[in-house]
Amino acid sequence: MKKIFPIVLVLATVVGAQQQNFIQYVNPLIGTQKMGHTYPGATVPFGSVQLSPDTDEQPYLIGGKYNKEAYRYCAGYQYDDKEIVGFSHTHFSGTGHSDLGDFLIMPTVGDLQLEPGQKGDPKSGFRSAFSHSTEVAEPDYYKVLLEDDKILAEMTAGTRVGFHQYTFPASDRAHIILDLVHGIYNFDDKNVWTFVRVENDHTVVGYRQTTGWGRTRTVYFAMEFSKPFTSYGYKDFAPVPYRGFWRKFDQSKNFPEMAGKQLRAYFDFKTAANEKIKIKFALSPVSTNGALANLNTEVPGWDFDQVKRAGQAAWNREFSKIVITADRHDDLVNFYTAMYHAFISPTVYMDLDGEYKGIDQNIHRAAGFNNYTTFSLWDTYRALHPFFNIIQPTRDRDMIRSMLAHYDQSAEHMLPVWSHYANENWCMIGYHSVSVIADAIVAGNLAGAEANRALDAMVQTAHTKYYDGIGFYEQLGYVPEDKNSTSVSKTLEYAYDDFAIAQAAKKLGRTAVYNEFIKRSENWKHVFDPSTGFMRPKMSDGSWGKGFDPLKTEGQGFIEGNSWNYSLYVPHDPDGMIAAMGGKDQFVKRLDELFTMNLPNSFFAETEDITREGIIGGYIHGNEPSHHVAYLYDWTNQPWKTQERVRMILKHQYHASPDGLGGNDDCGQMSAWYLFSTLGFYPVAPASNMYMLGSPAVKTAVIRFENGRTLSIEARNQGDRNVYVTKVTLNGRELNRDFLTYTDITNGGKLVFFMSDKPISA
Amino acid sequence: MKKIFPIVLVLATVVGAQQQNFIQYVNPLIGTQKMGHTYPGATVPFGSVQLSPDTDEQPYLIGGKYNKEAYRYCAGYQYDDKEIVGFSHTHFSGTGHSDLGDFLIMPTVGDLQLEPGQKGDPKSGFRSAFSHSTEVAEPDYYKVLLEDDKILAEMTAGTRVGFHQYTFPASDRAHIILDLVHGIYNFDDKNVWTFVRVENDHTVVGYRQTTGWGRTRTVYFAMEFSKPFTSYGYKDFAPVPYRGFWRKFDQSKNFPEMAGKQLRAYFDFKTAANEKIKIKFALSPVSTNGALANLNTEVPGWDFDQVKRAGQAAWNREFSKIVITADRHDDLVNFYTAMYHAFISPTVYMDLDGEYKGIDQNIHRAAGFNNYTTFSLWDTYRALHPFFNIIQPTRDRDMIRSMLAHYDQSAEHMLPVWSHYANENWCMIGYHSVSVIADAIVAGNLAGAEANRALDAMVQTAHTKYYDGIGFYEQLGYVPEDKNSTSVSKTLEYAYDDFAIAQAAKKLGRTAVYNEFIKRSENWKHVFDPSTGFMRPKMSDGSWGKGFDPLKTEGQGFIEGNSWNYSLYVPHDPDGMIAAMGGKDQFVKRLDELFTMNLPNSFFAETEDITREGIIGGYIHGNEPSHHVAYLYDWTNQPWKTQERVRMILKHQYHASPDGLGGNDDCGQMSAWYLFSTLGFYPVAPASNMYMLGSPAVKTAVIRFENGRTLSIEARNQGDRNVYVTKVTLNGRELNRDFLTYTDITNGGKLVFFMSDKPISA
Repeated sequence: MKKIFPIVLVLATVVGAQQQNFIQYVNPLIGTQKMGHTYPGATVPFGSVQLSPDTDEQPYLIGGKYNKEAYRYCAGYQYDDKEIVGFSHTHFSGTGHSDLGDFLIMPTVGDLQLEPGQKGDPKSGFRSAFSHSTEVAEPDYYKVLLEDDKILAEMTAGTRVGFHQYTFPASDRAHIILDLVHGIYNFDDKNVWTFVRVENDHTVVGYRQTTGWGRTRTVYFAMEFSKPFTSYGYKDFAPVPYRGFWRKFDQSKNFPEMAGKQLRAYFDFKTAANEKIKIKFALSPVSTNGALANLNTEVPGWDFDQVKRAGQAAWNREFSKIVITADRHDDLVNFYTAMYHAFISPTVYMDLDGEYKGIDQNIHRAAGFNNYTTFSLWDTYRALHPFFNIIQPTRDRDMIRSMLAHYDQSAEHMLPVWSHYANENWCMIGYHSVSVIADAIVAGNLAGAEANRALDAMVQTAHTKYYDGIGFYEQLGYVPEDKNSTSVSKTLEYAYDDFAIAQAAKKLGRTAVYNEFIKRSENWKHVFDPSTGFMRPKMSDGSWGKGFDPLKTEGQGFIEGNSWNYSLYVPHDPDGMIAAMGGKDQFVKRLDELFTMNLPNSFFAETEDITREGIIGGYIHGNEPSHHVAYLYDWTNQPWKTQERVRMILKHQYHASPDGLGGNDDCGQMSAWYLFSTLGFYPVAPASNMYMLGSPAVKTAVIRFENGRTLSIEARNQGDRNVYVTKVTLNGRELNRDFLTYTDITNGGKLVFFMSDKPISA
Repeated sequence: MKKIFPIVLVLATVVGAQQQNFIQYVNPLIGTQKMGHTYPGATVPFGSVQLSPDTDEQPYLIGGKYNKEAYRYCAGYQYDDKEIVGFSHTHFSGTGHSDLGDFLIMPTVGDLQLEPGQKGDPKSGFRSAFSHSTEVAEPDYYKVLLEDDKILAEMTAGTRVGFHQYTFPASDRAHIILDLVHGIYNFDDKNVWTFVRVENDHTVVGYRQTTGWGRTRTVYFAMEFSKPFTSYGYKDFAPVPYRGFWRKFDQSKNFPEMAGKQLRAYFDFKTAANEKIKIKFALSPVSTNGALANLNTEVPGWDFDQVKRAGQAAWNREFSKIVITADRHDDLVNFYTAMYHAFISPTVYMDLDGEYKGIDQNIHRAAGFNNYTTFSLWDTYRALHPFFNIIQPTRDRDMIRSMLAHYDQSAEHMLPVWSHYANENWCMIGYHSVSVIADAIVAGNLAGAEANRALDAMVQTAHTKYYDGIGFYEQLGYVPEDKNSTSVSKTLEYAYDDFAIAQAAKKLGRTAVYNEFIKRSENWKHVFDPSTGFMRPKMSDGSWGKGFDPLKTEGQGFIEGNSWNYSLYVPHDPDGMIAAMGGKDQFVKRLDELFTMNLPNSFFAETEDITREGIIGGYIHGNEPSHHVAYLYDWTNQPWKTQERVRMILKHQYHASPDGLGGNDDCGQMSAWYLFSTLGFYPVAPASNMYMLGSPAVKTAVIRFENGRTLSIEARNQGDRNVYVTKVTLNGRELNRDFLTYTDITNGGKLVFFMSDKPISA
C-alpha cells in the first residue's frame, strides 16, 4: 500500500472490552467437523494432558494398507458421530497426520464389555450413544451424558493431570475401563508394549509404548480413583505366545501386574444413585513415579470445580493478552477460539521437577527452561511461532530452548523437523525450526551466547548432507526430482530457511554465515522455469521434468500444494520473484487468476486434506504453502487486493461452527493466520522483521505484551464492506511503509487503520 | 555318625597349596556339553557382562509351539556344535529355562551377510566354522579362530564392559555385525523393540527390549570401536507396516538412528593383515547414558591384556578364599571350576553410580549396597546362598538387600521368586528368598532393624493369598491338587519356607511370628499318606488323588521330581519324617532302594532336563529337590551311608570335561553342592544352623573368611576308598554331633576328618 488517504472515522462498537471472562467466547467444537481436526475436550494452555472424547477408533492400517477413514480421526472426535468410545488423555490439535489417544477411560454399568463395539451399534461394546444437546465444551471443561448407561461424564485438567468426574446411576456392577489398546492412528503393531501396576485399591500406574509416527514413544501414567474399587482385572487381546511361568496361577483378576500389547483393564465398583466417581489421571514423559509425583503435587485434592476454575482462569489470563471489540458475537467467538487453538500446542513435556525424556531416550532435566514437545514446524513456523514471538516471547524462547535440547540430544545433530514425545517423525519437508529461531533472534528474543549457539545449530542442521536432498541442494543449488521427490517444494523451502539463517547471522554479526546463506537463499531461482513462468521440477542433469502440470501435486515435485500455489513461495524475495515472473502487473494478474480460477473436479480427488471449502479459486487456504500469498499484492501496485483477499479469506474460511475451519488447524497455524490477519498484519517471511499490512477485521484491539507495554489497534470506519485501508498511523504518525516491524508492534502505542469501502487505487 | 574311632593319619599330598594362580585349574568348558547349560565365555565374578560365543540360535517357539531344541541352548553354546554365530553379552549360567543373549557381535570379511545362515552350512550366513583346537576358555578370557574368514576372536570383560579383540586379515571389506535379532529363547514377538544410535564414527548406543521369561526386560548398551568405521547401515527384518515419514529419505545407510523389532546393523572397515579391531561394549540396566558412563569409567583405555589381567586377578582373589589340596589334578579342576560357576550369579545389576531399574520399571539408586539380579532361588536357596552366607557374607547381604528392594518395589509386595532384570518370572514354586534371608539372619549376617524389616517382608510374602495356592494352603494346611497343580511339591516347599521364617523369627525374638510359622511348617504331614508311605496329591475335599504313581512327575502333584524323591523333602524335620515313614531302619531301606533302583526307560522320556547321567538309581542329582537326600542317612543309624553316597555322587556326577555336569548347573547350585560336599559338610535345611557332616573329598582345605579367620580342614588318611569318616575333631576336640554350626565354621581353627575304608558300623 503505497498511498493512503484519510477517511471518515467511525468509532467501533465496544464489545467485550471490559469483559475479562473470555471463556464464553470460546467454542472448542469449532473445527471438530470435517477437516479441522480439533478436539472438544479439556486442556489448559500448552498443557501436557488433552482429555477429550473419542467418537470412534479407525485403524490407520487395515491388513497393512492405509485406511483413509483414519484421517478423519486425527483428533479422535468427529462431530457427526453419534457415539463416544471413551475419553483419552492425549490429542493433537488440528494435525493432518496423527498419533496419541493414550489411555482411554470409559465408565459403564451392567455386564462388563471389554471391546468398544461397532460404530452405529452402541450396545455391541462399551461405546455409548451421546447427543450434542447434552454436550458442553469450554476451555478446560467438557461435559456429556453417556446415554447408554445414563452416566454423566465431566472432565477438566491441570497441565499434567486429567480430572474425570462420572456421575453414576445406582448399580452393583459399575465399571471403569482403562483401555490401552485404543489409540489414534492405531495399527496392529502400534502398541509396542503396555504395562499396568495396581499399587493399591485406588491407585494404578503404567505406561504405553507405541511406534508409528512417533517411532519410539512412551507415555507413563498414574491414575487415582476417589473411591476404592472392589475388584479388577484385565484381558490381553493379543497375548504373546510365550508359555512361561506368568500363568502358573491366575493373573487375570485381582493380580496387580499386567503387561502386553493389547490390554484392556477394568475396575469394579458399587454405586449409589448419582454417586460421583472421580479419577485423577497424571501423565509423565519419564516414569510412573514421575506421573505419581505430578498427580500428587499438581492436583492434591478432589475438588473438581476448583481444578476447572483454575484451568479457566489460566485460559482467561492468556485471552486477556488481546482484548478485541467487533460488531458480531461470532467475530469474538472466532477470535478467542482461534487464540484457544493457537495456545494448545506445543505442549509442556516435562515432569514438575523438570525431568523429561530426550530424543536420545535418556532422561534429562530442563535447566532454566520449560521443555515443550509437539513441534509441527512445517505448519507453525509461518504464523504461529511468529505470533508467539510477539505475544508469548517467554514461551517461544523456552520452545526454542527445547529445540536446542533436541539438537544437542539428536543423533543427527539436527534441529527438529516435526518432533513429538522424544521423537523426530520427519514429517513434511524443510527444517523450519531455523525460521522460528531466526525470527526470535532478529526480534532480540534470543540473544548473546545462546543465540550464537542456536545459530551454530541452524548452520549444522542446514549442512546435514544425508537429510532429504540437502547434499544435492548444496552441490547443484536445487534438489533434483530424479534423486529426491517433492524436489521443488524442498528447494523453495530450503531457500527460505537459508534466508532465515542469514538474517539471524546478520543480527549476530556472523558475516561468513550470512554470506553463505544469503547466497544459498537465491536457490529458488534454479527451479523457476521462465518459459512457463512456474516453479517446476528439475532433473540432476539440469533438464526440466517431463509432463509438467501446474495444477497437480503428486509426482510433480510438490507436496501439499501444486505449482500454481508453490511457485509463489519465495517469501523472502517477493520482489525478485515478481521480477522473474514478468513484473508487478503481470504478477497481479497471476494472483487474480489464482484466486478466481475454476478448478477441475479431478483436483479434489487428489489429496485427502483439501476440501472445496478450504479453497478460493485455486488458492488453497486449507494447506499452508499459500498462507502468505494474499499478502503478496503488497509488493505490487495494488495492495488493496491484499486487503480485499484477506478479509474474504477471514470471512469464508473461518466460521463459528463445528465445520468452521476450511482445513486442518495444524497445531494452531490456521488459527494464527486468523489472529494476525484479524489484527491487520502478517509475517510473510518470518525473520525478515516485516509484518505486512493487510486489513484488520476487528474494530479495536488492545494487545498487552510481556514487556508491560500495550498496543491499541483501532480500525476506524470498520465495516463489512469497509475492507480497504486508506491510511495507517502509528502513534499519530502516518506510516510510510506497508509493513510493521517487531518493535513497531511491541513498543506499543496506538495503531490506527483508516478503513473505507473503496480502495485507494480505485 | 554316632560313634567315631581314631584311625591312622596319612598326610595328604600338598598340591597347589602355595599356588595362587588358580586360573589354571578352571575350565569354563565344563558343563557346556549336554545338559550343564554353562557357557565358556568371559566374565568377572558376579559380572553384569557375560561375553560368550553362541553356537546356534534355536527359537523357543516355532509357529507358537515350543521347540524342544531351544532347551539345549539355554546358555547359547553347545560343545558339539561346529559353528559360532557370534558373541553375545548376556548369558545365564546353567539355567533350565532361559533368556538373554543380548547384542550379538560377529566380525566378517568379504560380502556382507546379515543373516546367521543355516546350521551346518557356515557359508550360508555370517556364522563361522570353528574348532576346539583353537579354542581357549579361561576365567575372563576366551579365544577362538573363526575359520571362515580367518579372524581371531578374543574376549575379556570388566563388571559392566565386554572387551572384544578381533585380529583381521587384510580386507577392503571387513565388517562387524551388531545383531539385535539374536537372542536366547527367542520367538517372533520376543523383541518388543530395539533401538540403535550411531553417536559418531566409533561410538554406538542403544537398547534391546524383550518379553518372554523377563516379561518386560530392557538392556541398554554403549559400544565403542578402537577404529572409526568407514560406513554403516542396517536391515530391519520385520519392519513395522507403518507408512510414515521415516522413509522420506534413505535411512538404511549412514543414518544414525535405527529402531524396530528385528534389526541387524553393520559397520564397515578396511583392515591391514593382522590388524586388530577392538570393541568395548558396556551394558546398563538404566540408560544408554548409563552404559556410556560405565564404559568410559570402567574401561577407559584400550589395553586388552590389562583388562584380562584385572579380571583374572579378581577371579584369583575369589578362588584364594578356599585353597585345597587333592591327589588328582582333576579334583582341583572340578573344585575351582565349581567355585567359578558358583561365583557367576547373581549378577551385579546397577550402573557405577548405583542406579538400577526396579521391578516397578522406575530408576532407583542403590543406597549403601550393590544391587544384584538373576535370582534362581528355587535352585540356589539350597546350597549356593548358604555357601555365600559363609564365603561371601557381604555379597550375600547385598543380594538380600537387592531382594528387599525388589519387595519394596513389587506391586505384589512379595520377595522375589525367580527374578531377573527388573522382572519377576515366577519360575518354579515356593518363595525361597525367605530361606536365603532366614539363613543370613540365623547366622547373624543380617541383624537389627534391617533383619526385622526383612522378617516383615518374609511374613507378608508368605501371606500372599493369590500366589500359587497360598490361600488354600493357609485355609486347608496344604495345596489341593484339584485347585492348583504340582500341589505336593508346593505344600512341602511352603512348609520348609515356614520353618525358615520361624527360625528367623526365633533369632529376632519375634515369638508370635515364630509360633505361627513353626506350626505352618508341620503342613508337610497333610500330604503324607501313611497307607502308601509317600507324599501324594490331596484333593480339596481331603481325599487322595487317584492314579498315584510315585515314579511319575507330570500330573502327579510334583515338579522336577517324582514322589520317590519329593517324599523325602522335609529337610527341616527329618526325625518327624522318618518316624512317619516307619522309623530309622525302614527309612534306611527306603533310601537304599532309591539309590539302587532300576528306573524304567519310560522315565527318561518324561522330562527334558533329566539325563541318565544325572541319576543314580532313582536318585536324581540333576534336579534339585533331592540335593539333601544323601545326607538324610545322618538321621539314621547308618550315617556312613551318607559318606558313601556323597563320595559316589561327587565321583559320578562331576567330571573335568565338557560333559562333566550331570544336569543343569542352575546358576551355581550344582556347583555349590559340590563345594560343600567336597569340604565335608552340607546345609540340609538352610536356616537350621546345621551343616550336616558328610565325607570330605579334599586332602586339605584352608578357608579364609571375611572376618579374617581361617578354617583348616584336613582329611587324614584320605583316599579313593577311604570315604568313611571315623572321627571328626574341631580344634582338637572330638565332635560329638553329626553337624557343624555356622560359628563352628566361621570362627575358624582346625577341622580334622579321620578317614577309613571301612564304616564304623561295618
